[in-house]
Amino acid sequence: MPKIKNRKIISRTDLFRIDKLNIKFDNNQVRDYEVICGTGHGAVMVIPIINNEIIFIREYAAAIDDYSLTLPKGKIDEGESVIEAANREMQEEIGFKSSDIKFLYLLDLAPGYVNHKTNIVVAKSLSESKLDGDEPEPLELIRCNINDLSRFLSKEKNIDSRVLSAIYILKEFTDDSG
Amino acid sequence: MPKIKNRKIISRTDLFRIDKLNIKFDNNQVRDYEVICGTGHGAVMVIPIINNEIIFIREYAAAIDDYSLTLPKGKIDEGESVIEAANREMQEEIGFKSSDIKFLYLLDLAPGYVNHKTNIVVAKSLSESKLDGDEPEPLELIRCNINDLSRFLSKEKNIDSRVLSAIYILKEFTDDSG
Repeated sequence: MPKIKNRKIISRTDLFRIDKLNIKFDNNQVRDYEVICGTGHGAVMVIPIINNEIIFIREYAAAIDDYSLTLPKGKIDEGESVIEAANREMQEEIGFKSSDIKFLYLLDLAPGYVNHKTNIVVAKSLSESKLDGDEPEPLELIRCNINDLSRFLSKEKNIDSRVLSAIYILKEFTDDSG
Repeated sequence: MPKIKNRKIISRTDLFRIDKLNIKFDNNQVRDYEVICGTGHGAVMVIPIINNEIIFIREYAAAIDDYSLTLPKGKIDEGESVIEAANREMQEEIGFKSSDIKFLYLLDLAPGYVNHKTNIVVAKSLSESKLDGDEPEPLELIRCNINDLSRFLSKEKNIDSRVLSAIYILKEFTDDSG
């Protein structure tokens, strides 16, 4: 197993930290790496299912300066469980809460250079419940039948890779059909 | 469409740049965002298919200090096409070149806060050809039959979200069965 011989913070902003790592491999090769470290408590992304439909969100994505297709998601607050964070984000972003949220998968984003992990959960037994979020504008909600996901997603653009991963995991790693 | 009123570079390292954006929405709400910008020419990830098997890579991933499952991938060099970069990365990482590489999808990572896009391509008609790469240690190669991907991936850990997305796209957006 490679060993991190030195870790140095080379940049820190409100949201991110960039570390420089000096790593020695078992064959004595040594390399420097820059990696992005989140500064929070991780993230959650929810697959909300109601009447055999999944509720997606179309939201402005600042990094690409365009709208993107995503699912309810957000940072886990300090002291909050994954399930609590999922229920809060759903109420803020799509106006539903759930009495049946199940953890599905802990997803790596791009583990070579970001340490960010997203807890993927599935939420069923939804009922209307609205919390105020910090969204700058109302989010567009799009429902898609669970049997029509491939056709729907193949026509969308700017899809968060975690959405495609989450749908693959839901369809292929579970026997969950909604 | 929201308008970026101001963009300021707040951090710059060898690999990354972090910008602070001040964005005004159509309803006059204003928000600040921090976004990570790559400093290169984009990236490519290859799905190499030979004898109905996909060749995966198990590689040390510095950001999570663990081994992760990925596919041949890397940055596109200056002046290089997506196809050329794919063929170079395959030769460096798995020891094959291809005379049949097709562009499949331009994948967003997490467009809310990273502008990174990865060109997903499929490579067939592989023949042995090795180029020296900059890998610090030999990469472990793992072949999986294209009909056994779900079982294989459900047992792996630390999978790059782009791998799960790429496999979903290959299976669901194309009629490509290898």
